[in-house]
Amino acid sequence: MMRHLLSTADLSRDDALLILDTAEQLSQVSGRSIKKLPTLRGRTVVNLFFEDSTRTRISFEAAAKRLSADVINFSAKGSSVSKGESLKDTALTLQAMGADAVVVRHGASGAPHRLANWVDGSVVNAGDGTHEHPTQALLDAFTMRRRLGDLEGRRVSIVGDVLHSRVARSNVHLLTTLGAEVTLVAPPTLLPVAMGEWPCEVSYDFDAVLPKSDVVMMLRVQHERMNASYFPSAREYSRRYGLDPERLGRMPDGAIVMHPGPMNRGMEIAAEVADSGRSTIVEQVTNGVTVRMAVLYLLLSGSEPAIGGNQ
Amino acid sequence: MMRHLLSTADLSRDDALLILDTAEQLSQVSGRSIKKLPTLRGRTVVNLFFEDSTRTRISFEAAAKRLSADVINFSAKGSSVSKGESLKDTALTLQAMGADAVVVRHGASGAPHRLANWVDGSVVNAGDGTHEHPTQALLDAFTMRRRLGDLEGRRVSIVGDVLHSRVARSNVHLLTTLGAEVTLVAPPTLLPVAMGEWPCEVSYDFDAVLPKSDVVMMLRVQHERMNASYFPSAREYSRRYGLDPERLGRMPDGAIVMHPGPMNRGMEIAAEVADSGRSTIVEQVTNGVTVRMAVLYLLLSGSEPAIGGNQ
Amino acid sequence: MMRHLLSTADLSRDDALLILDTAEQLSQVSGRSIKKLPTLRGRTVVNLFFEDSTRTRISFEAAAKRLSADVINFSAKGSSVSKGESLKDTALTLQAMGADAVVVRHGASGAPHRLANWVDGSVVNAGDGTHEHPTQALLDAFTMRRRLGDLEGRRVSIVGDVLHSRVARSNVHLLTTLGAEVTLVAPPTLLPVAMGEWPCEVSYDFDAVLPKSDVVMMLRVQHERMNASYFPSAREYSRRYGLDPERLGRMPDGAIVMHPGPMNRGMEIAAEVADSGRSTIVEQVTNGVTVRMAVLYLLLSGSEPAIGGNQ
Repeated sequence: MMRHLLSTADLSRDDALLILDTAEQLSQVSGRSIKKLPTLRGRTVVNLFFEDSTRTRISFEAAAKRLSADVINFSAKGSSVSKGESLKDTALTLQAMGADAVVVRHGASGAPHRLANWVDGSVVNAGDGTHEHPTQALLDAFTMRRRLGDLEGRRVSIVGDVLHSRVARSNVHLLTTLGAEVTLVAPPTLLPVAMGEWPCEVSYDFDAVLPKSDVVMMLRVQHERMNASYFPSAREYSRRYGLDPERLGRMPDGAIVMHPGPMNRGMEIAAEVADSGRSTIVEQVTNGVTVRMAVLYLLLSGSEPAIGGNQ
Repeated sequence: MMRHLLSTADLSRDDALLILDTAEQLSQVSGRSIKKLPTLRGRTVVNLFFEDSTRTRISFEAAAKRLSADVINFSAKGSSVSKGESLKDTALTLQAMGADAVVVRHGASGAPHRLANWVDGSVVNAGDGTHEHPTQALLDAFTMRRRLGDLEGRRVSIVGDVLHSRVARSNVHLLTTLGAEVTLVAPPTLLPVAMGEWPCEVSYDFDAVLPKSDVVMMLRVQHERMNASYFPSAREYSRRYGLDPERLGRMPDGAIVMHPGPMNRGMEIAAEVADSGRSTIVEQVTNGVTVRMAVLYLLLSGSEPAIGGNQ
Repeated sequence: MMRHLLSTADLSRDDALLILDTAEQLSQVSGRSIKKLPTLRGRTVVNLFFEDSTRTRISFEAAAKRLSADVINFSAKGSSVSKGESLKDTALTLQAMGADAVVVRHGASGAPHRLANWVDGSVVNAGDGTHEHPTQALLDAFTMRRRLGDLEGRRVSIVGDVLHSRVARSNVHLLTTLGAEVTLVAPPTLLPVAMGEWPCEVSYDFDAVLPKSDVVMMLRVQHERMNASYFPSAREYSRRYGLDPERLGRMPDGAIVMHPGPMNRGMEIAAEVADSGRSTIVEQVTNGVTVRMAVLYLLLSGSEPAIGGNQ
């Protein structure tokens, strides 16, 4: 089994399936009646967040605690990091304190990879710059499988600010690995310049793509980008790339609507769409905890027995 | 048993007594020698704080941990909430992550009620705007019962900035439900305009009320309000509505002094009074943990067995 | 056994050795295979931090959790403390909530001593002003013992901004108590005016001290001090008091290099030196958790049995 989870681009099909299948098993034992498993008792998971993301941090924290791990939250703001300590020294410090896994979110693409070079423990990328957010893609794939079955040949459209989206990038790689066909839908200014490396189709026309999508995944519009020169006006964006009830009606039977959250209701997604039966948005959150349990379980439980927690 | 604890205004006498009696039992088993109970093992309590309140957050955290629940702290600052996520989406997210109870503090009166409409789990109001702070009133009632016995016919004077005080409001409702007679004491500008709906007496004259009070509960003066036009000067306020040793001497034998904390020593309460044997201020803090244990226990333990925590 | 750990200046040789020996035992049972001990189950440790120090806070948190204590983090920023609550009331509040130990960091020298007067529980000084940081000195002594054996007669040079360093002060007292000979090395403006009370030598000449040092402990340069009038220029400081590979080469065989972290690589210590085999910097972090486990264990486990955690 892998030692880190850094990107979906280098995740093999077997490893991806192992994570999804493990999550499926965990979601069965960790239902309403059995919420806590002793698997990682005595293990320490550190949430090392250089960017605020309460939602992702809480999801990892809940996942780790359900496996009985100890969780230590480390917000880099106001820490020695802001006093100029290098990422390497932070990494070595956390390892020296006994962190078995470091869940890291960082504004710089590639930071988790660098961290992984320095520590013996496991590193989980919880979002790095515009690069990757692998557990988001895994929970998205898990959600699709539960709704649609095998992903082979499924057509997934990812709509919005692809240029700045680590969620889009992670999903393209993972979904392609799992056999789905991905189309990115965005205005030209919100697509990366070199799309050749991305194993997917591209379209500027949401309405053309809509009727042949089994999954429509809406990306969040970042408010801080809305006034940038490459960004259409909010009204124009919403009109051309927003998912409203009318567009929802033109999706195929059984097709689903996804969103990584947090949503801008009325902007990229209409409230009625977000709350409709086709929306998987709440399931995605639940599945996020399950998938992160699976990742932590696979990374940490194999290495050595967690003896002594509870004699 | 109730599913949420949102206000004392809609708390029945039976439910109020059940909480107080349960707290009494818990304070006996959860003494110095048995501090941790396995009751809520595997349950997750989320502290969702839109306003800073370390004191209340810690009290709930200690209460939940003593019942072996997992606690996740969610400060809304810097979170997706501040990125424009709606309260509803935050609520649905926490529920989807498996929160069994959400303890919420919010600047807007009524926010916990709205939240309770959206989630299946339990919601505990930890203070909403100028509306209610029900666990504060419950811990106050618990403290009075321990010192004075049955509250039937007991005369409680609540002194200070009633206008902005959720503590006052929650206490008026709960204490009246429990049979006490409440008098609010404040300058006219610090009393609500429509007092008709409040089941209590009102007085502008602290010295007149003092000799017939079994309990004098001093409210905290909010520094940010002290320069407002409706607020007397600090010196004037302290002189007319502050509890100093001289006033303490005019209270009946056995009467007690309460304060929800944090105190402004020398402002609404003199240091000697705060530290006197009649003061219950420290007991209130201890009882706060016990009462919150009782609330979480009653809300969460009945619903389903917490299997699997520790096989 | 002592009730608090406030300073190394008043730590007896026997107590110091008891802590170090206990840490040695804990590091043996709490190795990779048995990471969690049930010793402090049901006990609550509060981290009360008036100054940011993620590193120290995490170390205490990891130590307490490995002993199965519940940990509550209390950052004084934005808390009732910033609303004007006195340190005494904060202390009484934490005690009333059931804190068995309060780990306190405070900007004012002596704050932990004052706190200890007010609470029944144990107080651990995690750094107060420019006064003391006793667990740092204990982990340093522990690290030296492991590398060099008995400290009797060992020559330790502490280099840098001694004037503002609680680490230096705590180490001088503890190391002297343990029989080592300490020399402080700094420019005159970075030494305290009254050195007479310090049981150690003083030198302005790093190169003269270097060849007879068994331990060279480099102090962190605080960026905020670098532009102060008493501070040499960064280049000048680094040239005269920085530890570079050339100076490393002139240390005796077997001599070690220490640093409390976080480091300014290239300033007070060169990167090659920090990463060399003589550097104990990463070990110090690991030992910090172990020593803090020993301190919490000795302060808390003796007083009364931790029954009820897990029947």
